[in-house]
Amino acid sequence: MTKTPAVILVRPQMGENIGAAARAMFNFGLTDLRLVSPRDSWPDQRAIDMSSGALDKMPPVQVFETLPEALADLRMVYATTARPRDMVKPVFTPKAAIADSYARFGDGDGAGLVFGPERTGLENEELSLCHAIVTVPNNPDFPSINLAQAVLLMAYEWFQHSDDTPDKMLVSGDSGPADHADLLAFLERLENALEDGGFFKSDDLRPTMVRNIRAMFTRAELTHQEVQTLHGMVSALIRR
Amino acid sequence: MTKTPAVILVRPQMGENIGAAARAMFNFGLTDLRLVSPRDSWPDQRAIDMSSGALDKMPPVQVFETLPEALADLRMVYATTARPRDMVKPVFTPKAAIADSYARFGDGDGAGLVFGPERTGLENEELSLCHAIVTVPNNPDFPSINLAQAVLLMAYEWFQHSDDTPDKMLVSGDSGPADHADLLAFLERLENALEDGGFFKSDDLRPTMVRNIRAMFTRAELTHQEVQTLHGMVSALIRR
Repeated sequence: MTKTPAVILVRPQMGENIGAAARAMFNFGLTDLRLVSPRDSWPDQRAIDMSSGALDKMPPVQVFETLPEALADLRMVYATTARPRDMVKPVFTPKAAIADSYARFGDGDGAGLVFGPERTGLENEELSLCHAIVTVPNNPDFPSINLAQAVLLMAYEWFQHSDDTPDKMLVSGDSGPADHADLLAFLERLENALEDGGFFKSDDLRPTMVRNIRAMFTRAELTHQEVQTLHGMVSALIRR
Repeated sequence: MTKTPAVILVRPQMGENIGAAARAMFNFGLTDLRLVSPRDSWPDQRAIDMSSGALDKMPPVQVFETLPEALADLRMVYATTARPRDMVKPVFTPKAAIADSYARFGDGDGAGLVFGPERTGLENEELSLCHAIVTVPNNPDFPSINLAQAVLLMAYEWFQHSDDTPDKMLVSGDSGPADHADLLAFLERLENALEDGGFFKSDDLRPTMVRNIRAMFTRAELTHQEVQTLHGMVSALIRR
């Protein structure tokens, strides 16, 4: 199994958030969850419930007393937090932090993503142990992101970085795109039927109207089956 | 106020998820939340609690009985769901869907983002009312994303699309980057002090060792204040 970036939750308060973070991680293929001094004992039933099965499928969560112990085997540690005011640190966007970790480690082995407690965030001493900061650009009037949501964004960016899903595709099931000849045959039949029905008010307007009709149907990227359906619709309308 | 894409939650079951979705929306500047036939009555105290104040700051949530009513004033509707098997629909990634809506509407006015109920997702009849599908590429062995998390991803992509935060920046507080002359003066002082301490074992090795030391300190992008601190550290070490 490819090693993936570790997610380190420092002093998490709510089991629900740990579980939701685990679900978000595993949704995007991250499996190395580490807790530093969680408020409640571990394992935590609320976390297990909120993980929707993720915690059962992931390797066991590791629990540490201190942040240095949790980071010991990692080589580049990114802390997700608001931009620090009084510490000289590189600050990445989530996407750029993931790109940076890929550039260093390829598969993510050696990278750690650190998240602070729900209310207070990371303390400066904890931040001073991390190589870099990740700050999520967002609404300055309402910037506080839920812990599990912050984990989700990093996991999402990690998965997207190496994902090759096309930006847009047309799901067309068993029926592929229509041959152009079939589409044109339908358009000509439609135009003839419209002619018979008195749709084209004048010969002057006909070419423009035909172009506009053709624009609708060519733009629709019709499948073979859909062209057959359109033929059936025209037949039904003619029968009326 | 710029109009932003509407988020439409169809038959949501859990008030907690509605609240978490509202928080995620407002974290990224989306404010138009619409509910279609929620299971529980609205307003819902659990939603208000989970929104961490977002629902108080956003315009009132609109509640509709049917999906067509909720979509009436929208012009391009994207449904976030698993890829449909038996419907011919364009399928976007989240990022590409947001880019598509920007290309159509600029500020997002007219776009709708539809999300189905927690367990069952959208029904085919509901999907048939939407112009396009958004499917989040993720772990095929654990693909089910929490409702509020799915809303977050779309809101996040919406905000990122027009955000110009640099990928990486160095926060250096009041002290700007050091002048190169100051950095070089420190390096020469350090190298002289090391020479005096017998650090360079031979004249042959000296140039390489100096280059390696300089690599560390130039790579560090030091601030003016940090160069002063380094001078102080060298002074303290010489005194020993």
